[in-house]
Amino acid sequence: MTENTEVATIRTIAILGGTGKEGKGLGYRWAKAGYRVLIGSRSEEKARAAVEDLRGMLGSVQDLAALTNDEAARQADLVVLTVPFGVHKTMCEQLKDAVQGKILIDVAVPLVPPKVTKVQMPPAGSAAMEAKEVLGDAVQVVAAFQNISYEHLLKDEKIECDVLVCGGNKASRQVVLKLVSDAGLIGWDAGVIENSVVVEGMTSILIGLNKQFGIESAGIRITGVPRPDEN
Amino acid sequence: MTENTEVATIRTIAILGGTGKEGKGLGYRWAKAGYRVLIGSRSEEKARAAVEDLRGMLGSVQDLAALTNDEAARQADLVVLTVPFGVHKTMCEQLKDAVQGKILIDVAVPLVPPKVTKVQMPPAGSAAMEAKEVLGDAVQVVAAFQNISYEHLLKDEKIECDVLVCGGNKASRQVVLKLVSDAGLIGWDAGVIENSVVVEGMTSILIGLNKQFGIESAGIRITGVPRPDEN
Repeated sequence: MTENTEVATIRTIAILGGTGKEGKGLGYRWAKAGYRVLIGSRSEEKARAAVEDLRGMLGSVQDLAALTNDEAARQADLVVLTVPFGVHKTMCEQLKDAVQGKILIDVAVPLVPPKVTKVQMPPAGSAAMEAKEVLGDAVQVVAAFQNISYEHLLKDEKIECDVLVCGGNKASRQVVLKLVSDAGLIGWDAGVIENSVVVEGMTSILIGLNKQFGIESAGIRITGVPRPDEN
Repeated sequence: MTENTEVATIRTIAILGGTGKEGKGLGYRWAKAGYRVLIGSRSEEKARAAVEDLRGMLGSVQDLAALTNDEAARQADLVVLTVPFGVHKTMCEQLKDAVQGKILIDVAVPLVPPKVTKVQMPPAGSAAMEAKEVLGDAVQVVAAFQNISYEHLLKDEKIECDVLVCGGNKASRQVVLKLVSDAGLIGWDAGVIENSVVVEGMTSILIGLNKQFGIESAGIRITGVPRPDEN
């Protein structure tokens, strides 16, 4: 099966913007699952500080390195983009060479302050579609992880929020679904990249619910399907 | 409270395109909850057949009438639009006069066959935004009920799918949330009408999951919030 072959080749994951809480949280989970994790940042010094933090939490079980974003992207089998939306397009332009032929997981949510509870997509249609427009057809842009509260990732807590995975081709979504599972989360194949507007936009709805209830934990769960956490 | 005053005034609900399974399902639930339900159709004869069906299921506890779409809209306190997306815009144009000053619940999902698993929104941004564009600011267009499997509505079954309610002003969303609850469902205030792209588009993702698993029951559930069905 093509899917398994591709899954097997993912050994090194670059997390760009990896010094933010999203990036650190995902890096923590994947390093713990045995992947080599490259934390990328504009500043190698900031990347080193994030790696030191993660080393403190992970103990001896880890394979981590601090690099610039570009160097991390070049050395990785798969690249995860967790930068704020304000620098998303510029980052994609800067990364274009380094990610050709790879899968890029786009975690960006196009929130436009101050109305972050209102869905506001960029001209391309979504952040992931903007990435695809910049990076071209040789990169499999897959949208995922936009709806997770990242605080939970670093706490080894069970996360009550599913991950909808869309974009790229079916094989690349399977690769990402394996990474979702290895991060301790439940993921679903949510189809083509045009569907990323739903997944990214859901974040604004969840932020709105968090505000209504004075919480930070609103998430979604797919129902009526055979779930790995229900027997 | 303005919200309660408005809730109290909703007594008669028109369901346009009410002869389809979505409309009949919602009409069944609301008639059962004690509302007067007007089933509208282009053909009064079709509307009468649907009302006869519902009378058979509801027994004596019902207040139902069969009307043309226009007459139903004129007589109702609140109008529900459950027509197929192909006639959505035309219906909104025809209804414009009859719905001024009312709440219109838009159930339409802009599916574009054959790729119904791919989110494809109309130029206005979503079906609900298209309705608002046609109907103007004096109509509170609220998007809801797009993600429900309507088979379950007619069966008195507990439905494992939440209802995200967005659009209109906050008071009109509260009115609709009361109707969601009276239909035996759990609803959430999902914010402004721009968020309807997420709720309508989610239907394509759920159809995709149904196809993947050979089921018809995929739905969503909001997690991490205080739920009325969890104590």
